[in-house]
Amino acid sequence: MTEPGSFRIEIVRGDAVESVHRIHAVVADRHGRLQAWGDRARPTIARSAIKSIQALPLVASGAADAFGLARHELALACASHGAEPAHVAAVLAWLERIGLSEADLECGPDRPLGQDARRAWYRAGGATRPVLNCCSGKHSGFLTVARHLGLPTAGYIRPDSPVQQLVTGAVAAATGLDLASAGPTGIDGCGIPVFSVPLERLALAMARLVDPVDLPDDLAAASPRIVDAAQDAWWVSGTGRTETVVTAAAHQPVVIKTGAEGVFMAALPERGLGLVVKADDGASRASQPAIKALLRHLGVLPPLEGPVEITNKAGDVSGEIRAVLGAPVAAHLRPAAVLARPA
Amino acid sequence: MTEPGSFRIEIVRGDAVESVHRIHAVVADRHGRLQAWGDRARPTIARSAIKSIQALPLVASGAADAFGLARHELALACASHGAEPAHVAAVLAWLERIGLSEADLECGPDRPLGQDARRAWYRAGGATRPVLNCCSGKHSGFLTVARHLGLPTAGYIRPDSPVQQLVTGAVAAATGLDLASAGPTGIDGCGIPVFSVPLERLALAMARLVDPVDLPDDLAAASPRIVDAAQDAWWVSGTGRTETVVTAAAHQPVVIKTGAEGVFMAALPERGLGLVVKADDGASRASQPAIKALLRHLGVLPPLEGPVEITNKAGDVSGEIRAVLGAPVAAHLRPAAVLARPA
Repeated sequence: MTEPGSFRIEIVRGDAVESVHRIHAVVADRHGRLQAWGDRARPTIARSAIKSIQALPLVASGAADAFGLARHELALACASHGAEPAHVAAVLAWLERIGLSEADLECGPDRPLGQDARRAWYRAGGATRPVLNCCSGKHSGFLTVARHLGLPTAGYIRPDSPVQQLVTGAVAAATGLDLASAGPTGIDGCGIPVFSVPLERLALAMARLVDPVDLPDDLAAASPRIVDAAQDAWWVSGTGRTETVVTAAAHQPVVIKTGAEGVFMAALPERGLGLVVKADDGASRASQPAIKALLRHLGVLPPLEGPVEITNKAGDVSGEIRAVLGAPVAAHLRPAAVLARPA
Repeated sequence: MTEPGSFRIEIVRGDAVESVHRIHAVVADRHGRLQAWGDRARPTIARSAIKSIQALPLVASGAADAFGLARHELALACASHGAEPAHVAAVLAWLERIGLSEADLECGPDRPLGQDARRAWYRAGGATRPVLNCCSGKHSGFLTVARHLGLPTAGYIRPDSPVQQLVTGAVAAATGLDLASAGPTGIDGCGIPVFSVPLERLALAMARLVDPVDLPDDLAAASPRIVDAAQDAWWVSGTGRTETVVTAAAHQPVVIKTGAEGVFMAALPERGLGLVVKADDGASRASQPAIKALLRHLGVLPPLEGPVEITNKAGDVSGEIRAVLGAPVAAHLRPAAVLARPA
């Protein structure tokens, strides 16, 4: 029997549960009506899962129009792309169009996230490059804002840069939290400031992204274009990635995005719902089945037809990965309070 | 304040604890005197961490002497090697000496575990092979036993094969559990049977490996040679691996071995102690600092000189990984009971 509000991903080998991932999850609408599992106030850094909201200033500032950004470029601004050849070519072309180059990216050099792209990269010698960093589209968006505002581009990742202040403002508006006063919790893998916030605030943010009447006018006006572009899952992720697979299988439109350390966030534009899952231990192998289980719970994905099997190196089935999802606890958003759990 | 018996690995980003791994751990001597953290009865599959005990029949059966196995070959029988060139060459030479070849390995084809070896493998075309499987040395040991006993080699991984019955017998003797009656829980990544047992029984098994008076005579007589070979950490793992680093830094002899799904086991030959850690969620990024913290607690490793920092792609420090280890709970081994938690 599964208790209400409990949510875990079990790694099963033969007859035994070998490992267990504890999941915290929230579904929210813009009024703060919640379905919750685990600790809905768990301090959580959204990481890359919040890129769609971080991309709102790209449209709201007028930068996207000024540089004639295409839909796939807006999608790349919301992406952790796999550095497949078309991703890389598109980012380089975009940077050239705004008068910049790969050398202006401050995300740090990396290798491709996509499996096939990484294999090809190894064979080609395996040199890391900033454009291969899965965040290079997001950073190109930041650079586009800097260019549009006539700002120097160097240092655009710093918390005190005008670009990051716009980005922080969008996240603050979506979460309903005074992030500017709280200050950043730390820096992301790609160098930009991050904020640790109660999990339920991330679900609210995704609800506000697709049902934006509570956002400031400029961000609310920008949201439909970002929501549209962010549904182009291949540009947001890549071939065979969870975002691509889920979007293709979903019965209704969905914005979905992974983040590091076991985060997955999604939004349902037709229903005004925001979703977030956080694996307590940070495992992506848990956050992926967890967000799928939540989407099945909401009727967005069809029921599983059988177990998700694990095969060993000899090709034999050795176990399965399964989601154990209790009934949700109905709740309402708590008032904004302390943002970060002191380390 | 850290409570007695609590043990966790925290992934810190900036000012916040971003992710948390819960650790179960036990230190035991052969009398069943324990220091414990977390759930000392947690049903646990030791995976590759128990290879030294699985290798006891290779010596006890007389097979090692009959084929003149060298120390590094016994170490490979206890190994999850990195498939560095010398590992691969040694396994192939060993197989040839017993009149067999790579085609007789039933561990399944794989790619190298070692980072440099994997890079070179990608560049060379990236074809998986059984000898590259980190378990190919263990399987060569199984094949050596089969040859020595005059058995057919095909099917040596099956639970009912005489080879696996010897291996199961060694694990049963070391853990003090009737595994033959219980039957296997499932199969390992390399196809051999695995058993889910209370965590404390794995610590006992490692204590008995290095203080073997409670083992049957043939296994007790075999243990010093296995314990000696298993300390040759490079052959057991590879360049830069936790086993190699810990063995080099330790103030006293140590047998140490990782296993999949967040297991690490060790033994201290001079003190007759066995150690085991299991990350509840199966993460190796947690089991590695956990076993090191336990070895520091026991005075085997020197204290940390500073935080274990995490750097991001731009090369900036973004956080740290830290072990939070409460005082141990003193306890005594429980009687053997149910072995596996039904899935």
